[in-house]
Amino acid sequence: MDDGFLFIISGPSGAGKGTLAKRLAEGLDDVVLSISCTTRQPRPGEIDGEHYFFLSDDAFVKRIEAGDFLECAEVHKKHKYGTPEPFVKENIQAGKVVVLEIDVQGFREVMDTGVEMVSVFITPSDTEELKRRILSRAPMDDEELERRMLIANEEFSYLPLFNYFIVNDDLDEAVANIISVVRAERAKVSRKNREIKKIIQLRGKESNA
Amino acid sequence: MDDGFLFIISGPSGAGKGTLAKRLAEGLDDVVLSISCTTRQPRPGEIDGEHYFFLSDDAFVKRIEAGDFLECAEVHKKHKYGTPEPFVKENIQAGKVVVLEIDVQGFREVMDTGVEMVSVFITPSDTEELKRRILSRAPMDDEELERRMLIANEEFSYLPLFNYFIVNDDLDEAVANIISVVRAERAKVSRKNREIKKIIQLRGKESNA
Repeated sequence: MDDGFLFIISGPSGAGKGTLAKRLAEGLDDVVLSISCTTRQPRPGEIDGEHYFFLSDDAFVKRIEAGDFLECAEVHKKHKYGTPEPFVKENIQAGKVVVLEIDVQGFREVMDTGVEMVSVFITPSDTEELKRRILSRAPMDDEELERRMLIANEEFSYLPLFNYFIVNDDLDEAVANIISVVRAERAKVSRKNREIKKIIQLRGKESNA
Repeated sequence: MDDGFLFIISGPSGAGKGTLAKRLAEGLDDVVLSISCTTRQPRPGEIDGEHYFFLSDDAFVKRIEAGDFLECAEVHKKHKYGTPEPFVKENIQAGKVVVLEIDVQGFREVMDTGVEMVSVFITPSDTEELKRRILSRAPMDDEELERRMLIANEEFSYLPLFNYFIVNDDLDEAVANIISVVRAERAKVSRKNREIKKIIQLRGKESNA
């Protein structure tokens, strides 16, 4: 079993982070999606502990105070969302790659905790395509669209803090690249402690036989 | 166009370095195999500048003196082989990944030059398989086989100097992993200077439009 790690997929809204995270988890063994805590109500079909950990406001605040979140945010000044550190740590210790799909602000929060991670910045190569994708999700006026594009441009300035950069113009190509990044990270000598120990033990036994 | 780099495939004799190098070059664009210089005679069908650069002994020694080789070695105290640095540098500057398949001693020589590279150590997971592969190539007595296995064990001790470690038990799996390593290296933010500059220029133009 290889060593597990935290894998962050970030980038502007409309970049395709969610689709890539899902395709990555489907495409490789031992890759799990991080499950967020939220204070919003479950939608029909959503299962506690599978889609989200659903918490009351009080319980959420207690977990903030306990320092249980890698990052958390209030969306639309309404519902709280957070990434619970225990879930992430337990899965990493079990040798899993834990995928966290998150906006750039969230990435910066996780980075500030000093936790070890591998990060990838996703974006389509041109801003027109980004506009089209943002508009295809939810209708909005020009002012809101302009605001989103300004945020996207600011987010782009954090690209040098990331490990990898994948342009998501062609989805299959982007999926192949993100799967490659995880496979390559797993093949790093620095992550192969368990496998190398096993081989050295085998060789020792053969020499003594 | 992404930045090029030198990619070293190393490991014990019988690990499958040559096959993996060939499959890697076939599997990805802009990946070229390094071409060695040698003082041995061309075999039927071998083309100068394609399979090897064929040199006289004198010409080879002059290139050693000029410091033209990243590494060189005399095989069986008979023929000289060397990796010409100009070929490697020109291709890297043209954005290519230059693949150098080399033994561990050669890897250490290249490392001593301080040249920037990405390195992968290849081995089958058990020594019995390594023995079988070595014997399938050329017949040899027990003493010679024992000597080869001692060298393989010593080579294994250099594994911590490498960037990546790929077990070659299943060839297709090993090919997929080595292709992933090159794709991931290309996706590194630190190698994306040209692409990032292009995107920033595009964004600048759009903002000014």
